[in-house]
Amino acid sequence: MATRAVVLLSGGLDSATTLAIAGAEGYECHALSFDYGQRHVCELESAKKVAAALGAVQHLTLRLDLRAIGGSALTADIDVPKGRSEEAMSTGIPVTYVPARNTIFLSHALAWAEVLGAQDVFIGVNALDYSGYPDCRPEFTEAFEKLANLATQAGVEGKSRFRVHTPLIELSKAQIVARAYELNVDLSLTWSCYVPEPDGRACGLCDSCLLRKKGFAEARLADPVPSAR
Amino acid sequence: MATRAVVLLSGGLDSATTLAIAGAEGYECHALSFDYGQRHVCELESAKKVAAALGAVQHLTLRLDLRAIGGSALTADIDVPKGRSEEAMSTGIPVTYVPARNTIFLSHALAWAEVLGAQDVFIGVNALDYSGYPDCRPEFTEAFEKLANLATQAGVEGKSRFRVHTPLIELSKAQIVARAYELNVDLSLTWSCYVPEPDGRACGLCDSCLLRKKGFAEARLADPVPSAR
Repeated sequence: MATRAVVLLSGGLDSATTLAIAGAEGYECHALSFDYGQRHVCELESAKKVAAALGAVQHLTLRLDLRAIGGSALTADIDVPKGRSEEAMSTGIPVTYVPARNTIFLSHALAWAEVLGAQDVFIGVNALDYSGYPDCRPEFTEAFEKLANLATQAGVEGKSRFRVHTPLIELSKAQIVARAYELNVDLSLTWSCYVPEPDGRACGLCDSCLLRKKGFAEARLADPVPSAR
Repeated sequence: MATRAVVLLSGGLDSATTLAIAGAEGYECHALSFDYGQRHVCELESAKKVAAALGAVQHLTLRLDLRAIGGSALTADIDVPKGRSEEAMSTGIPVTYVPARNTIFLSHALAWAEVLGAQDVFIGVNALDYSGYPDCRPEFTEAFEKLANLATQAGVEGKSRFRVHTPLIELSKAQIVARAYELNVDLSLTWSCYVPEPDGRACGLCDSCLLRKKGFAEARLADPVPSAR
C-alpha cells in the first residue's frame, strides 16, 4: 500500500505541480482545498479538476470563515494592486497577504493527516518568485514541522514523525513551469489570477498573474490559460 | 488605550477564568470561539454569556468544518467514555482528543490578532488536571509562539512580538476554581460537559465533568452548574 500524504491544493500552478511531484514520488495523495472567502473562489473549480486529473484518491474542500477576520485584499473590501513592477513586488508584504493563512491551512492538513494516519504534508510554497508572504519561507515551514510533532497524538507517542514537504521552495517560477511540463501536468486546468475578468479570463495584471507570466516567459512556453492582457 | 488581546473562549471553566485573568491584567479582550461541529455545541451559548459578563469588547464565533475531518469522539460518531478512573484518565490520549484542534484555534487567533494589531493571545490550557491532550502542554504553546513570529507580517517586520499567554498552565483544577472565585467569575454561566443530558444538565461522568467535579471538590466549593450525577 502506498504511503498516504496530504497535499494542499489551491488550484494554482504551484500547488498543481506539488501534487504531481507527490504523486511521482509514490504517495497516495489526499488533496485539501479551502473555501475561505477568497475573491477568486473560481480557483476551487480548478482544484477539483486538477485533483481528478492528477489522480488524487480523495479531494476535500473545507469551509473557513476568514472573511470574518478580514485584513487582506483577498478577503475584504481592499483593492488588489495591479501592474506592479518587479521591484515593487519584491519590497515588503503586499495587501493580498492573508493573515496567518498558511498556518491555518497547514493546521487543517495536520489534523487530516492525523486522522488518515499520514505523516507527510505537501505545500507548494516557494521563496524565490513569490509575493513576499512571510508564511512562504523555509523557516516558517520548518517551525511548523516542529510544532506538528508536539501538537499531535502520533508525534507524542513516537509512532510517526510529521514532515512538511516543500518541493518548490528553491525553484524559480520558470523552473516550476518546466517541472509541471516534465510531469505532464495539464496547466490549462489551473488558475492563478486573484481578480478574474467578467469574461472569465485572467486579468494579467495582479501579482499572481505577473509572476505566472514571468514563469512561462522565462521557461519559453505558452500559458494555456487565456489572459486579458 | 488598553493593549488588545485575543482570548480563546470555549465557554468552559478554564477559558472563562483565562478571560477574567486577561481582563484583570488590563488587556482589552477580544474573545474568540469556534463552532467546529462539537457535539456539545451548547458551550457556545455559555461563551456568549461569559464574554458579555466579563466585559470582552468583542466576541467572534467562527465556523470550522472539523466534522468533515472527524477522528474524535467530539466530532464523529464515536462514544465519549464515561466514568473513567483517575488512573485511566492519566494514561494515554483519550478519544475525545480532536486532532490538531488547538493548533487550528491558535492559528485563527493569530490571524485575528494580526488584523487587530494585537500581539497577545491567551489560551486556557493546563498541564496538570487535564485530559492528556498533546496540544495542552507548555512545549506545544512555546512552539506555536515561535511559529507565530515567523508566520506573520508583524513578526517579520519586527514591529511586534507575539506572545501566547497560558496563565493556567501550572494550576490544578482546584486552583483554577479558586482563581475564578477570586476574580468574581460567574461560573454558573460556564459549560464543561461533553455529553449534555436531555434535560440540559451536565452528565457528571465524562472526563470533562469528572475533572471539573474534582476541581470544585478539592477547592471545597459547590458547582453552580447542575449535574445529573
